[in-house]
Amino acid sequence: MMTSRGYDMTPTMYSPDGRIYQVEYAMETVKRGTLAIGVCSKEGVIIAVEEKTRTLQTTNITQKIFQVDFHIGVAAAGYIPDARIQVDSARFYSQGSRMTYDESVEVATVAKHLADQSHQFTQYSGVRPNGVSLIIAGIDQKGESIYVTDPSGTYVQYAAIAIGAGSDDVNEFLEKHYNSDISMDDAASLAIAAINLKNEQKDGIDDINMAKITTKAKVFETISESDLKNYSQNVSKFASE
Amino acid sequence: MMTSRGYDMTPTMYSPDGRIYQVEYAMETVKRGTLAIGVCSKEGVIIAVEEKTRTLQTTNITQKIFQVDFHIGVAAAGYIPDARIQVDSARFYSQGSRMTYDESVEVATVAKHLADQSHQFTQYSGVRPNGVSLIIAGIDQKGESIYVTDPSGTYVQYAAIAIGAGSDDVNEFLEKHYNSDISMDDAASLAIAAINLKNEQKDGIDDINMAKITTKAKVFETISESDLKNYSQNVSKFASE
Amino acid sequence: MMTSRGYDMTPTMYSPDGRIYQVEYAMETVKRGTLAIGVCSKEGVIIAVEEKTRTLQTTNITQKIFQVDFHIGVAAAGYIPDARIQVDSARFYSQGSRMTYDESVEVATVAKHLADQSHQFTQYSGVRPNGVSLIIAGIDQKGESIYVTDPSGTYVQYAAIAIGAGSDDVNEFLEKHYNSDISMDDAASLAIAAINLKNEQKDGIDDINMAKITTKAKVFETISESDLKNYSQNVSKFASE
Amino acid sequence: MMTSRGYDMTPTMYSPDGRIYQVEYAMETVKRGTLAIGVCSKEGVIIAVEEKTRTLQTTNITQKIFQVDFHIGVAAAGYIPDARIQVDSARFYSQGSRMTYDESVEVATVAKHLADQSHQFTQYSGVRPNGVSLIIAGIDQKGESIYVTDPSGTYVQYAAIAIGAGSDDVNEFLEKHYNSDISMDDAASLAIAAINLKNEQKDGIDDINMAKITTKAKVFETISESDLKNYSQNVSKFASE
Amino acid sequence: MMTSRGYDMTPTMYSPDGRIYQVEYAMETVKRGTLAIGVCSKEGVIIAVEEKTRTLQTTNITQKIFQVDFHIGVAAAGYIPDARIQVDSARFYSQGSRMTYDESVEVATVAKHLADQSHQFTQYSGVRPNGVSLIIAGIDQKGESIYVTDPSGTYVQYAAIAIGAGSDDVNEFLEKHYNSDISMDDAASLAIAAINLKNEQKDGIDDINMAKITTKAKVFETISESDLKNYSQNVSKFASE
Amino acid sequence: MMTSRGYDMTPTMYSPDGRIYQVEYAMETVKRGTLAIGVCSKEGVIIAVEEKTRTLQTTNITQKIFQVDFHIGVAAAGYIPDARIQVDSARFYSQGSRMTYDESVEVATVAKHLADQSHQFTQYSGVRPNGVSLIIAGIDQKGESIYVTDPSGTYVQYAAIAIGAGSDDVNEFLEKHYNSDISMDDAASLAIAAINLKNEQKDGIDDINMAKITTKAKVFETISESDLKNYSQNVSKFASE
Amino acid sequence: MMTSRGYDMTPTMYSPDGRIYQVEYAMETVKRGTLAIGVCSKEGVIIAVEEKTRTLQTTNITQKIFQVDFHIGVAAAGYIPDARIQVDSARFYSQGSRMTYDESVEVATVAKHLADQSHQFTQYSGVRPNGVSLIIAGIDQKGESIYVTDPSGTYVQYAAIAIGAGSDDVNEFLEKHYNSDISMDDAASLAIAAINLKNEQKDGIDDINMAKITTKAKVFETISESDLKNYSQNVSKFASE
Repeated sequence: MMTSRGYDMTPTMYSPDGRIYQVEYAMETVKRGTLAIGVCSKEGVIIAVEEKTRTLQTTNITQKIFQVDFHIGVAAAGYIPDARIQVDSARFYSQGSRMTYDESVEVATVAKHLADQSHQFTQYSGVRPNGVSLIIAGIDQKGESIYVTDPSGTYVQYAAIAIGAGSDDVNEFLEKHYNSDISMDDAASLAIAAINLKNEQKDGIDDINMAKITTKAKVFETISESDLKNYSQNVSKFASE
Repeated sequence: MMTSRGYDMTPTMYSPDGRIYQVEYAMETVKRGTLAIGVCSKEGVIIAVEEKTRTLQTTNITQKIFQVDFHIGVAAAGYIPDARIQVDSARFYSQGSRMTYDESVEVATVAKHLADQSHQFTQYSGVRPNGVSLIIAGIDQKGESIYVTDPSGTYVQYAAIAIGAGSDDVNEFLEKHYNSDISMDDAASLAIAAINLKNEQKDGIDDINMAKITTKAKVFETISESDLKNYSQNVSKFASE
Repeated sequence: MMTSRGYDMTPTMYSPDGRIYQVEYAMETVKRGTLAIGVCSKEGVIIAVEEKTRTLQTTNITQKIFQVDFHIGVAAAGYIPDARIQVDSARFYSQGSRMTYDESVEVATVAKHLADQSHQFTQYSGVRPNGVSLIIAGIDQKGESIYVTDPSGTYVQYAAIAIGAGSDDVNEFLEKHYNSDISMDDAASLAIAAINLKNEQKDGIDDINMAKITTKAKVFETISESDLKNYSQNVSKFASE
Repeated sequence: MMTSRGYDMTPTMYSPDGRIYQVEYAMETVKRGTLAIGVCSKEGVIIAVEEKTRTLQTTNITQKIFQVDFHIGVAAAGYIPDARIQVDSARFYSQGSRMTYDESVEVATVAKHLADQSHQFTQYSGVRPNGVSLIIAGIDQKGESIYVTDPSGTYVQYAAIAIGAGSDDVNEFLEKHYNSDISMDDAASLAIAAINLKNEQKDGIDDINMAKITTKAKVFETISESDLKNYSQNVSKFASE
Repeated sequence: MMTSRGYDMTPTMYSPDGRIYQVEYAMETVKRGTLAIGVCSKEGVIIAVEEKTRTLQTTNITQKIFQVDFHIGVAAAGYIPDARIQVDSARFYSQGSRMTYDESVEVATVAKHLADQSHQFTQYSGVRPNGVSLIIAGIDQKGESIYVTDPSGTYVQYAAIAIGAGSDDVNEFLEKHYNSDISMDDAASLAIAAINLKNEQKDGIDDINMAKITTKAKVFETISESDLKNYSQNVSKFASE
Repeated sequence: MMTSRGYDMTPTMYSPDGRIYQVEYAMETVKRGTLAIGVCSKEGVIIAVEEKTRTLQTTNITQKIFQVDFHIGVAAAGYIPDARIQVDSARFYSQGSRMTYDESVEVATVAKHLADQSHQFTQYSGVRPNGVSLIIAGIDQKGESIYVTDPSGTYVQYAAIAIGAGSDDVNEFLEKHYNSDISMDDAASLAIAAINLKNEQKDGIDDINMAKITTKAKVFETISESDLKNYSQNVSKFASE
Repeated sequence: MMTSRGYDMTPTMYSPDGRIYQVEYAMETVKRGTLAIGVCSKEGVIIAVEEKTRTLQTTNITQKIFQVDFHIGVAAAGYIPDARIQVDSARFYSQGSRMTYDESVEVATVAKHLADQSHQFTQYSGVRPNGVSLIIAGIDQKGESIYVTDPSGTYVQYAAIAIGAGSDDVNEFLEKHYNSDISMDDAASLAIAAINLKNEQKDGIDDINMAKITTKAKVFETISESDLKNYSQNVSKFASE
């Protein structure tokens, strides 16, 4: 830590070994956030977040899952107000695209748009990098896809991915249990199992919010608590060793 | 504290562990403010603040409760001049919305507008984050609702919530005594009991200002001192343990 | 003091305990200024300042009492050039209001305008907070009123108030002797007694400037030296214990 | 001095005790400048400066006395290039006023204009306060008047005043010898006596420049060396005990 | 390192020995990136990158090889989000050029455009230098060419070149084995051999992405995995002694 | 020096004793420059500079003497690129003045223009003061005149003056030998003698450039080497005892 | 070095002894660059640079010699990307001049334009001075000429000049061997001898690039390798004793 001092004060400064510390610190902010997960199935895409609410908090409004367009949703980990602003930008961009070209924007295009925005916050002074990673999931002409953006401005496509606190272990878990022929129902169960990886209760759903976009409907749907309950009954399929 | 030094000088800088200290310090400013409370009832919403005045201060003007529109009110805790500016912005936004769409703005929309503003003050240099949390309470097409914004740019919906000095204890108290079928009268009594939680005199109302918006009238009303007195006679309903 | 170091360099920085030191220091500037007093009577309002002049200074021009409009006056304590700029802004605002609405601006509106301006200087970098508090006194449709603004951007209504050096003691004195049925003449005598609180000569008027706006005339009038002399003969009414 | 360190680096920063050190330092710059004097008589106004020139310097051009308009002159002490810029601004302002209102600008208006300008340099970053005090002397509808501006943005009217090096002693001297019935000739002699207060040769005029505006002529006139010599013969009237 | 301290904080500062450390640190960022290679043949150009992907990452999308125009491709080493922004700029520039002049832009012109952009980030404050080097390869009127840009704003033409981690050794290897009559197939095999220089498995292609533009087709083509496999069978031609 | 530390970093900061160190340091830059001299005669004005050239430098182009207009020339000491920019500004200003008023600009007006420009660089941040002093010499309606500007923004008229390295001694020398009836020829010889004041060879002209403007011709003329030689033969007239 | 600390951080700051260290450090950057040479002959001008290339670098493109216009070329030493930007500006300026006046721009005018640009980078904050010196050589109405610009914004005309690493020794060598009647062929040989001054092989041309503009053709021509070889055979004419 000592050696980074002074070089880590602004995103417009390199350290002698060529690192941009403020971007790395922003990634720590993502790691401080609760888990978010995306799983891609042949039948559609699933996004899920762990979201602990206070007793009197109104739970029908999720802070960490957002609908961007009919066919695109976002799950976030990190500094959530940054996520909200990025989602607003994605919505505006997506609608603009629809008006201009008279067709739905591609998921990859939205992901690149958000990554480009995040990149701007790493190159100019007077701002801080975004403190959030986003899972952008959707269905478009090319099929189902899931992208992840991070504070550095990178965007990468995954079949299944976790971001936020404990995501390293959860990604290992996903790598072990995911296969590309997974059904939507199993994808949902896998997501629950992944979020509960370190919890005693492997089928707990109290702190889980989930949404899906099916290849058929191509429309973002919040998954109801009763459906969540059903999915949770199959988590044992993905018993961690 | 030592280790934060240097990373806590501007809101555009992350600490090595991914925290934005200036935002956290602004939340301390909120904690230094006197208590503000919002309670949601099926019949309407209540907002209340503790507000100590000097002997010769004219008390018919409250510094910490504001009307935003016919159907929306705000209670503030923290650096009050920041609250005033945010309320002005909310009024302007609310009126603009009415002119454009010819109907009342939704409470959630106002809350998001204020949270987005607060967020801006966390991302760009040359400003400080807002030093205030707001309880935004109102009645709209979706019914009664109460939102809380904070310096980070977060906004969250609650059934009942306290912000400001001692709010942790008061929120525990609210969680114990609040239920969603509470009447407006009981909601008012609960608010008084909550503000007096740590006071000897559990029914004191000298330093309390309160306002309500009923589902029926949909209009912001300041609660008179005589009504306050009536409500205070029922605080014993909510005897803390 | 030690612990504030570094956090007290700009108004756009919070200390770890949520304080904005530059605003607090600006309030020290107000405390360094000589005393200013406002007293509200049913018959009108009085503002008075202590103002020591050099031997060859032309005394018919006061540095610390200003007329804003026909019906509004200001008394200032602190860094006087800041007061002058604020008064100019108040005059401009007041005249603009008159032209737009064809009626006199309300005293509260002017007070809020000046407080909002002061607030701006606490939120953006590249400026310092205003180093002055103002007593804004006037008569409007709602009657007699006196407001006080300070460097933080707060404005509060008082029946009687002192600002500047020694104001804590003087406010205690006012709280003891003021009552809301006070006559204009007694209000003037009270102001003299208050300014001389710590002086040997309780009826000295050499360093006092005073102005009044009566409810009847609704016009700002400087009080002549002979009237001051008359008022000073009744200061014994308000003998401090 | 030690304790001011850090708080005295920019005019937009208060010290913990509410002082603006950069403004106070700019006043030191004024104290480093040679003496300037203004004296008001019923018959007109006199301004005079001490101005030491190098042997081959062309002396018919004064660096420290300026004509602003027909009826207004300025004498400066401190950082003279700042004075020159302020005088240019005053000339422009005065001519603009004449064109707009078709009459001569008032002396007080010019003084306030210059003080307001100086104030701006105390409130915004990226500039330094003006390092100069000005004596603005003239004749207008209200008669003879002399104003003094300083780096803080203050302006004050005096019957007679000295600024610059040694001005404290000289002002004491003026207070002893000035009276409001002084003739123009005596005012000129008094100014010479004042400038030579600490010199052995009480009637020396080699380093003195002087100008006058008489109530009759209302026109700025440089006083010739022969007139200066005449005035100097009466300095003994004002023997400093 | 000690001696550079202070001079290495911004790209707008020289050290006493005339170095621009922030530019040198940005070059370290390039060295931290995985290897990228360009090889020029009489029959066309080859670009290749080493690109390790996570297990569930979708591999059909490369992060480090980009098509700029029909006839131009880019391979990047270093901070990839910077590369993406530069490639976007190159695409826009290339299309603009086509529209204006109705012909394909020259490869050298694109390289110069990107180098000029990088240079801007070394001369003005408030930004950081680009943390990426690019290999720009293409076919134009002048034939096959490969250019390299770096964070300093330099661009240089090479027959064969490696950038990124371990590029010093790989460039030595290329110098030994490259000759200007190399066939496209051998160029591809050489690139594979070069990337695997330090690996045990000399013909591994799992982490390699490659693209080519042939002189005949003048069109950017991604090289398929089966073609890669074929090329890899000839890496022994370039056994490193 | 110690005590100035911190206060001497920008021209927009006063030291506790009211000095602007960056301006004083810029004057040191002038003192580091080689000597420049101006001498006023009844028949015209002379400007001369010491200018050492490298062996292969083309000497017919002087770096330190400039023609501004037909009737005005400039000699510079200090940081010469600053002088060049100021001269360009003077040329532009002078031509603009001629176009607007259809007559030659006055020398004093040009001097004031350049001094005002220099002053700007002492009041705003983000620039450094000019590091050059200029001798502005010319003939206008008022006759022959010579002005000197310096980094502070001061301009002063002299009959004869030296600036740059050793100018203190040279000015003493000029004061001893100059008289206002000096002929042009003697003025030229005096300038040579002054530049050689500290040299063994009192009549050396190898490193001297000189120009004149005669009252008759009113046109800037470079003085030829043969004329210089003639003038140098009379330097003994001004033997520095 | 110690004593410069703090004063050498920005080009807008003088040290106590009046130096602008950032400009001096930029001159160190020039000294770090490889040698560039310009030689003026009655028959034309020669520019030459030492330019070491990597084995696979394409050598037909020089990094350090540039054509600006038909009749003007540039050779650079120092931070080459800065040179490229300056050359682009010179080309634009030169073409603009041709369009406006319908004739070729003068070499001196281009040199002054580039020097003025470099000067701007020494006076304003937020940029660094240019880290390059340029030899601008050409033929215009006034004949053959060679100018040198440096980071300070100075431009000087020379008959023959070297810049960059070891230029002090090479300039001594040029002073000894250059004479103004030198033929173009000998000028070229002299340039080769000068570049090889410290090399064992006095006639080596592998790392030399050269260009010429003859008085007759008035067109920039790169000198071919075979011509270079011929010239190199006469370097013994300029044996450095």
